Amino acid sequence: MNTFGTLLRLTTFGESHGEAIGGVLDGYPSGILIDKEYIHTQMMRRRPGQSAITTSRNEADEVEFLSGIFEGRSTGTSIAFIIRNNNNHSADYENLRNVYRPSHADYVYTAKYGVRDHRGGGRSSARETAVRVCAGALAQLVLKEHGIEICAYTSRVGEIELPGSYEKHDLSAVDSNVVRCPNAQVAARMEQLILDVKREGDTVGGVVTCVVKGAPVGLGEPLYDKLSARLAQAMLSINAAKGFEYGNGFAGACGRGSQQNDIFCVKDGHVGTTTNNSGGIQGGISNGMDIYFRVAFKPVATLLMQQPTISVSGEETTVLARGRHDPCVVPRAVPVVEAMSALTILDFLLISKARNR
Amino acid sequence: MNTFGTLLRLTTFGESHGEAIGGVLDGYPSGILIDKEYIHTQMMRRRPGQSAITTSRNEADEVEFLSGIFEGRSTGTSIAFIIRNNNNHSADYENLRNVYRPSHADYVYTAKYGVRDHRGGGRSSARETAVRVCAGALAQLVLKEHGIEICAYTSRVGEIELPGSYEKHDLSAVDSNVVRCPNAQVAARMEQLILDVKREGDTVGGVVTCVVKGAPVGLGEPLYDKLSARLAQAMLSINAAKGFEYGNGFAGACGRGSQQNDIFCVKDGHVGTTTNNSGGIQGGISNGMDIYFRVAFKPVATLLMQQPTISVSGEETTVLARGRHDPCVVPRAVPVVEAMSALTILDFLLISKARNR
Amino acid sequence: MNTFGTLLRLTTFGESHGEAIGGVLDGYPSGILIDKEYIHTQMMRRRPGQSAITTSRNEADEVEFLSGIFEGRSTGTSIAFIIRNNNNHSADYENLRNVYRPSHADYVYTAKYGVRDHRGGGRSSARETAVRVCAGALAQLVLKEHGIEICAYTSRVGEIELPGSYEKHDLSAVDSNVVRCPNAQVAARMEQLILDVKREGDTVGGVVTCVVKGAPVGLGEPLYDKLSARLAQAMLSINAAKGFEYGNGFAGACGRGSQQNDIFCVKDGHVGTTTNNSGGIQGGISNGMDIYFRVAFKPVATLLMQQPTISVSGEETTVLARGRHDPCVVPRAVPVVEAMSALTILDFLLISKARNR
Amino acid sequence: MNTFGTLLRLTTFGESHGEAIGGVLDGYPSGILIDKEYIHTQMMRRRPGQSAITTSRNEADEVEFLSGIFEGRSTGTSIAFIIRNNNNHSADYENLRNVYRPSHADYVYTAKYGVRDHRGGGRSSARETAVRVCAGALAQLVLKEHGIEICAYTSRVGEIELPGSYEKHDLSAVDSNVVRCPNAQVAARMEQLILDVKREGDTVGGVVTCVVKGAPVGLGEPLYDKLSARLAQAMLSINAAKGFEYGNGFAGACGRGSQQNDIFCVKDGHVGTTTNNSGGIQGGISNGMDIYFRVAFKPVATLLMQQPTISVSGEETTVLARGRHDPCVVPRAVPVVEAMSALTILDFLLISKARNR
Repeated sequence: MNTFGTLLRLTTFGESHGEAIGGVLDGYPSGILIDKEYIHTQMMRRRPGQSAITTSRNEADEVEFLSGIFEGRSTGTSIAFIIRNNNNHSADYENLRNVYRPSHADYVYTAKYGVRDHRGGGRSSARETAVRVCAGALAQLVLKEHGIEICAYTSRVGEIELPGSYEKHDLSAVDSNVVRCPNAQVAARMEQLILDVKREGDTVGGVVTCVVKGAPVGLGEPLYDKLSARLAQAMLSINAAKGFEYGNGFAGACGRGSQQNDIFCVKDGHVGTTTNNSGGIQGGISNGMDIYFRVAFKPVATLLMQQPTISVSGEETTVLARGRHDPCVVPRAVPVVEAMSALTILDFLLISKARNR
Repeated sequence: MNTFGTLLRLTTFGESHGEAIGGVLDGYPSGILIDKEYIHTQMMRRRPGQSAITTSRNEADEVEFLSGIFEGRSTGTSIAFIIRNNNNHSADYENLRNVYRPSHADYVYTAKYGVRDHRGGGRSSARETAVRVCAGALAQLVLKEHGIEICAYTSRVGEIELPGSYEKHDLSAVDSNVVRCPNAQVAARMEQLILDVKREGDTVGGVVTCVVKGAPVGLGEPLYDKLSARLAQAMLSINAAKGFEYGNGFAGACGRGSQQNDIFCVKDGHVGTTTNNSGGIQGGISNGMDIYFRVAFKPVATLLMQQPTISVSGEETTVLARGRHDPCVVPRAVPVVEAMSALTILDFLLISKARNR
Repeated sequence: MNTFGTLLRLTTFGESHGEAIGGVLDGYPSGILIDKEYIHTQMMRRRPGQSAITTSRNEADEVEFLSGIFEGRSTGTSIAFIIRNNNNHSADYENLRNVYRPSHADYVYTAKYGVRDHRGGGRSSARETAVRVCAGALAQLVLKEHGIEICAYTSRVGEIELPGSYEKHDLSAVDSNVVRCPNAQVAARMEQLILDVKREGDTVGGVVTCVVKGAPVGLGEPLYDKLSARLAQAMLSINAAKGFEYGNGFAGACGRGSQQNDIFCVKDGHVGTTTNNSGGIQGGISNGMDIYFRVAFKPVATLLMQQPTISVSGEETTVLARGRHDPCVVPRAVPVVEAMSALTILDFLLISKARNR
Repeated sequence: MNTFGTLLRLTTFGESHGEAIGGVLDGYPSGILIDKEYIHTQMMRRRPGQSAITTSRNEADEVEFLSGIFEGRSTGTSIAFIIRNNNNHSADYENLRNVYRPSHADYVYTAKYGVRDHRGGGRSSARETAVRVCAGALAQLVLKEHGIEICAYTSRVGEIELPGSYEKHDLSAVDSNVVRCPNAQVAARMEQLILDVKREGDTVGGVVTCVVKGAPVGLGEPLYDKLSARLAQAMLSINAAKGFEYGNGFAGACGRGSQQNDIFCVKDGHVGTTTNNSGGIQGGISNGMDIYFRVAFKPVATLLMQQPTISVSGEETTVLARGRHDPCVVPRAVPVVEAMSALTILDFLLISKARNR
């Protein structure tokens, strides 16, 4: 449904070409100074039209807060916010009213609900991720007070992969290029690939890697709300996400226990592990080491080329997207991955206050 | 927490060396003929001691039903069942009382709760998956009535991978070998690898692939309860799971939209797609095609060799597992993956009855 | 928290003197014609300033829908709506910043959250009930399609009680007077009492009776989500509510089983009961008879007279409300009781589609 | 459904004449010393066969704990327990297989599920409350550590009412008589009434009053999870409950605000109120004063006299209960009311650790 979380709950709404999108963040701690500038910065990182490799749609994405904040601080009551849809070229979509776009949600929404807002994907549009970024930024404000930092970056675009662990990269450099890859040379190649693909009217997928530093021991709940399980749900709930792995993930499936077990040690008076193949999560619960994971995103389904498809009545036809679309969703997915991580981590942080000894 | 699902809810309990493990399945449809033989068959597929490549622990895993069934049929009230722990070699674990086993949940449980049942991992033990298999078998009884079939198999053990799509394999052959790989030759190589690894006191990881056939269009809920998101949560909630991908998953992240979009067509009067890179899920909702996904499992953390670690009080020490352990969890994870899939699919099937037009 | 319901979920937000109040209704069926005029009519029934016996605040209470409706019909996605707070006399409340009003939520909110929007009660204000009425009206649109009718009325104001069962009254006359009591003579006495009390700067409580006709057999879930239990929660969640009883309620506690048991019979081919002391609910589940219950509301806590109290720092002081307040909340609570009933009944109606044979 | 609570969650199962009844208590704090003697004492207070005014069924009600406790203390994992049904006179119920008992859940369960365990009410039997008492006793062990005491008593049986506030009675005397009324003289009259009613084969209803002392400020969540709303749900979920009121409840609906407002004051350095008409709850949140409320119970529906009814196929017939039944449920409902109160209060106490400043 349209709610995410247990004690910290984000409920969202809105279609890409309706009046507004928005969210209600419930369970947010009281007394937090709401830094609107920080929130705006995060919104701008996800915003369309920010560079040549993103869609040229120019949405302002101004957040209007409606509740839950008084004299600059959170009150502990539900925080609602809306983002008006100002730049609606609904006419661009009139030709899609009776056609199912390949690999979009058009068909399943029609089948499930018997009705569909065909304009720009309606509720299934990635425009909805703007709401996640705003809520995630609110969550980050609390996490920062607890010394928890979340950083995501583009680690793959098409066949170009940034090699090596996150520890080898300068994560402060993520926003120094439009691809959001911390290695400038790899970033340049990725950017070129995206531009090439765009020129062909095609699209390309990729992978986002995310690191959470400073999380305390004990986040996550046995058995079905393991931190890893909830992160997986959070990531797979993002549009176009196709896979999730934490620690050494799928690659670890090739290995031997003797190579991959993380040996416990005492570091600076704290229990740690000499390696971190577990990705900071053991038995579904954070162990105090860095939490890291990877999320795969498919190529954007909207192509600027003619594709065969069928109409709502089942007849063969073709579809050619008009409008303005991303050739690669990955750079703009980076802040979305961070946002969903922040919401998940803060939810568990609140739960742990109730639970942990 | 220890509950999984929305309208169909499994709540579980039990430690590996406590009195019993068990579960309560709430929201199960009424009037279903409870085929206990089928349930027993599924339990035996997960059971330890079934072959030379699994642990030699010999647990009977007899299920005792306590409620919710009357004169052979489900009544619609909660179905409780327990499995007694008969074969407890608790003394095997006395040496683990004050030691953290590498890459186990020992440390995080101690840190989170301040107390821990150290015998065999307690609540974090994979023994708990027996409960999932029983509940999953109950779910399968309903799914069968709806023409939905779920089949999982071992597609990788260590570096040995079964190549090709699930469509290329004879899935009826999955149980014809102890590895549960549908290709006999690859299965033989996998079995040999597991035996080799076992001889060294080591362990090895792998991948399970799962296919759901016959699921109707419309399972899954926007946005945060996408079918893909809930399957990801379900799979990552299984012990030792490290990754999840559906459709063409991570590999798809390398590709182009023009290659990967699934083109709609009409097949036998039904809407379908010519390819199925989407893995039967679009916009988070099932589209009527086969649903398929892969789950990565790490090598078992318990090694029959000496490993360095620390004690509860932080002193360096070593640990050497006694007891009987699996060298590779993958063959026994196959029915667990099926079970969690069945619970997820049936939950959404019930929700869709309330929701869909 | 700020969410109500299981499959139909209302999440609300907003403070009485913030930017706006509003709600997100998730799980609403698709394809429903959204009759905005009907919704407006319900809003006007709750609206302040509608008569001499209500507060003279003159809020427009215009509902703006932001999502979930396309070309006049619901799409199955979350319906968000906001109501701007246009008529804010925040200065009226400046004197309350550091004072706890007797029998208001001022103290508990401050103690719980460490911060409070003191203007007009903030989140704890009954202004929030406007959101419930809007969501309830949406729910009623669906219930009407199922032949389910909900009607509430004022059955007591102070010491004046409308005698007799709901069956003795002409429920179509409820809105023919400002008190919303279906008996014109009793209504006139109630109105006079309210005016008398108002003149003294005092307030008075009362009781709302609610009837649900046409509900099918089988609404409600054993054990903790009994229809009676969820209705009780719904009603007690309304501001100023102090009690709930269904069927013959507290009075039935005096009786004998031989007098109060409802004898089953067959009426028009359907199973019914000759009496209905059960209030249409047996074992927590609707039995097809009329569902009826009563809700007690305390006198409004805001008095137009000086009251002793303490300040935030614990010093004795007095408080004298300025502003415009209701002398009796009951007439305006009538549509709120209907709204919460509608949300509860529709939620169970959706659940029953998934559950019932 | 069969789960109660948010962070502390009780999931229950079992039919009155099935193998066993039981529950899983999830979210219970770790490290709590499990005082089994205390639990047994509570079980014995609810147990049938304890006096001449209760049913003569003689169930042992021995609790078997299956999980979540290690070396005498809770581990933080789910605590499962079962109570075997040893004393099953199932044959007593054979005549009820095809008959609907008046004012029982027989008809609604059959209509909802299409199938029913007719023996002793099956899932709808009050036998299930034994599970609540066990879970409630576990909750009480934690509340005691926080200085929170819960005490319920019989305040009405039929037309005999114990007059006056709970403050006027010696609550330590509740268990000094079989009726559980703290006033010995009133208790004697109540006992006589129950015996008279029993002799006639009839039954009688009554009211339980409950007091919670020592609860901190800040329990309860705006808006729909108000403490009052959740207590109402908890109480109405008990078999035979027909009404709930807190503070001065329905009687307060007659009064004036000037009489009923609770004036704030400072007592012993703490904020308190001079009166407590609010019943310790303002704006749905505990204010640190005693929490008190009343619960109405209908007369037991099972009569030892012939009653007209219909059969499953709709034909007129009569029913005459065999077996052993309570003439008045109220004395045995006292520990059940306490148990549901304890579960509700502890749940909010855990939530408040996460929420409150």
